[in-house]
Amino acid sequence: MRTQVGIIGAGPAGLLLSHLLHLRGIESVVLESRTREQIESTIRAGVLEQGTMDLLSESGVGARMKAEGALHHGFELAYEGKRRRIDLTGLTGHAITVYAQHEVIKDLVAARVEAGGALLFGVSETSIHGIDTAAPSIRFTHQGEPCELQCDFVIGCDGSQGVSRASIPAALRKDYERVYPFGWFGILCEGPPSSDELIYARHERGFALVSTRSANVQRMYFQCDPKESVNNWSDDRIWAELHARVDSADGQKVVDGKIFQKNIVGMRSFVSTTMQHGRLFLAGDAAHIVPPTGAKGLNLAVADVRVLTAALRAFYEENRTDLLDGYSATALKRIWRAEHFSYWMTRMMHRLDDASPFEQQLQVAELEHVTTSRAAATAMAENYVGVAPV
Amino acid sequence: MRTQVGIIGAGPAGLLLSHLLHLRGIESVVLESRTREQIESTIRAGVLEQGTMDLLSESGVGARMKAEGALHHGFELAYEGKRRRIDLTGLTGHAITVYAQHEVIKDLVAARVEAGGALLFGVSETSIHGIDTAAPSIRFTHQGEPCELQCDFVIGCDGSQGVSRASIPAALRKDYERVYPFGWFGILCEGPPSSDELIYARHERGFALVSTRSANVQRMYFQCDPKESVNNWSDDRIWAELHARVDSADGQKVVDGKIFQKNIVGMRSFVSTTMQHGRLFLAGDAAHIVPPTGAKGLNLAVADVRVLTAALRAFYEENRTDLLDGYSATALKRIWRAEHFSYWMTRMMHRLDDASPFEQQLQVAELEHVTTSRAAATAMAENYVGVAPV
Repeated sequence: MRTQVGIIGAGPAGLLLSHLLHLRGIESVVLESRTREQIESTIRAGVLEQGTMDLLSESGVGARMKAEGALHHGFELAYEGKRRRIDLTGLTGHAITVYAQHEVIKDLVAARVEAGGALLFGVSETSIHGIDTAAPSIRFTHQGEPCELQCDFVIGCDGSQGVSRASIPAALRKDYERVYPFGWFGILCEGPPSSDELIYARHERGFALVSTRSANVQRMYFQCDPKESVNNWSDDRIWAELHARVDSADGQKVVDGKIFQKNIVGMRSFVSTTMQHGRLFLAGDAAHIVPPTGAKGLNLAVADVRVLTAALRAFYEENRTDLLDGYSATALKRIWRAEHFSYWMTRMMHRLDDASPFEQQLQVAELEHVTTSRAAATAMAENYVGVAPV
Repeated sequence: MRTQVGIIGAGPAGLLLSHLLHLRGIESVVLESRTREQIESTIRAGVLEQGTMDLLSESGVGARMKAEGALHHGFELAYEGKRRRIDLTGLTGHAITVYAQHEVIKDLVAARVEAGGALLFGVSETSIHGIDTAAPSIRFTHQGEPCELQCDFVIGCDGSQGVSRASIPAALRKDYERVYPFGWFGILCEGPPSSDELIYARHERGFALVSTRSANVQRMYFQCDPKESVNNWSDDRIWAELHARVDSADGQKVVDGKIFQKNIVGMRSFVSTTMQHGRLFLAGDAAHIVPPTGAKGLNLAVADVRVLTAALRAFYEENRTDLLDGYSATALKRIWRAEHFSYWMTRMMHRLDDASPFEQQLQVAELEHVTTSRAAATAMAENYVGVAPV
């Protein structure tokens, strides 16, 4: 089997890259270890930055996002019993769309299938070869048969646990990591929205986030011990905790619903540098992880793909290698911006059991700052909608 | 002895308060444990915010500051071999003045002496009595004689180690503290300035600050172990360290001079709440300490005094107690803003041996942010010149 660009991983990065390359006449094959059903139903993030919205729309896969996604012009910060709005559009001229990541996946898969794109599910035993040469290859097992995909480039979009990052020699890489001593307890519930906009709450009991999926399905999270078990949390206990953390002094309350899913996720920050070696390039979670607080994970993957698409296009259309050579350095500017923002927002909003009472009190001072200084609010809003300069 | 307002401590807070009360016809006595020579020669901070400049000028003690101080419209951030300017005036419409704290002290002492103000130096064995009554008093020893000053109010401006804070019952106070694992090694030297404006440098070897006193005297600092001894640092070693941390890749260099003073200061953040009890009120370092990075210490003392003067005036002229009752809550808003800013700038600029490599790398991301995002630069500049909303 031979193609121009071999892509490992059918997450947002791999699927979008394959789609964008196709639009530019560049051939690719996407290899995915999971099934189509699995990738289309895994619940992940759901906030799309302005640039992500624009890229999906411009490339013809934004119709359902526009029709079914919810355009948000601001969000609420809840702390000390107060609610203060960050007016994203008023401060930056931009907005975000709440549209679940697995819906983006469905739209991209549908587009690839419709275009006759090669998209192999359920592959296993994937390995990467010859990235130091001009003729790399990917070996894998598909439907019980050993296969080899020969290509010009291998793009690793296989997430944090995939084989791609490990194919860059460790001696050439420098990794940065911060594991947080807390996780998010997430629920999906049936019921009406608690608020028109997302609510990020800082409370002495811990962080909480109230978001929405649709008129009838709501998504909420609250900070927990990452080793916590969902079995310890009855529905009543969950609602009591959300009310304690989010309800405001003036009577605004979280609306209870029928909980139909519970899960706990750990939180960490991670950056792998470099993101390329020879003919192998990493994109998305394969190279970097952010805690979900800043809603940057999906958007960073899309940003990587934008840079990589331009670089591959320059190679195939103009025989230029400068953009490919500069890929990691270019992408890392935005990645470090988003890593900093995600860390900053995480530290401002979560109960920090590892911090001094002084630092805990500074959270309130910082929240007062971002809700009263137009400059500070603008800096936060620019980062949230994804237009902070990098 | 009897007066209206008994003030303990002849630092900037105590002297300025006494001066401002005098201008409003309110009588005070200032008690100071050190000599006039000592307070007029102790080298401390030297950056005056816009509001501090304005208050000194409006109250008639700003002439020498205007003549001899240096008005600065910006400062430089040095990192990764680069220098990037924060245009304070362009971003906020305000500026700062570099004018040493002991020069402010001299101006205030001169004004008090000229007005015939009661200013007692060398007092010892100071104690505060009756703050729960309408007739408090201060007992002390002066020139070998036991004395008692009866007054309506006692104002504690006697710094972090003074007796005033301890006179508020511990059960009513909540203190917040953060001690930093580094200090500043400071030098004074003879020689020309290295730069027209202050340079705050972040370097892997540690923080450094290049500031100026006059055309011939320069003030520089560099991060060190707080337990370091000045005896370990020859002049040559000091200059080598400053060059390593501050010189830029494009050839801008620190200018060596003849070092005539070396000292090391520890760094901590501290806030005592409440700042009042009965007829006792705290102002300045007696209630709060900031690390020097944000240049806020003197300015916070002045801000406290501004609030307290208005409250005492309302009491004497209008028989109102509401402003006195609200003093601590009012003052603490600005104090927490400044505490947060000082902590933030300290963490961004210093080598953090207690932080992960990830967090160390975020410093560069944050410096890129404040030097490329106009909103982030404006938020920083508003805090630096002292006009951030509180």
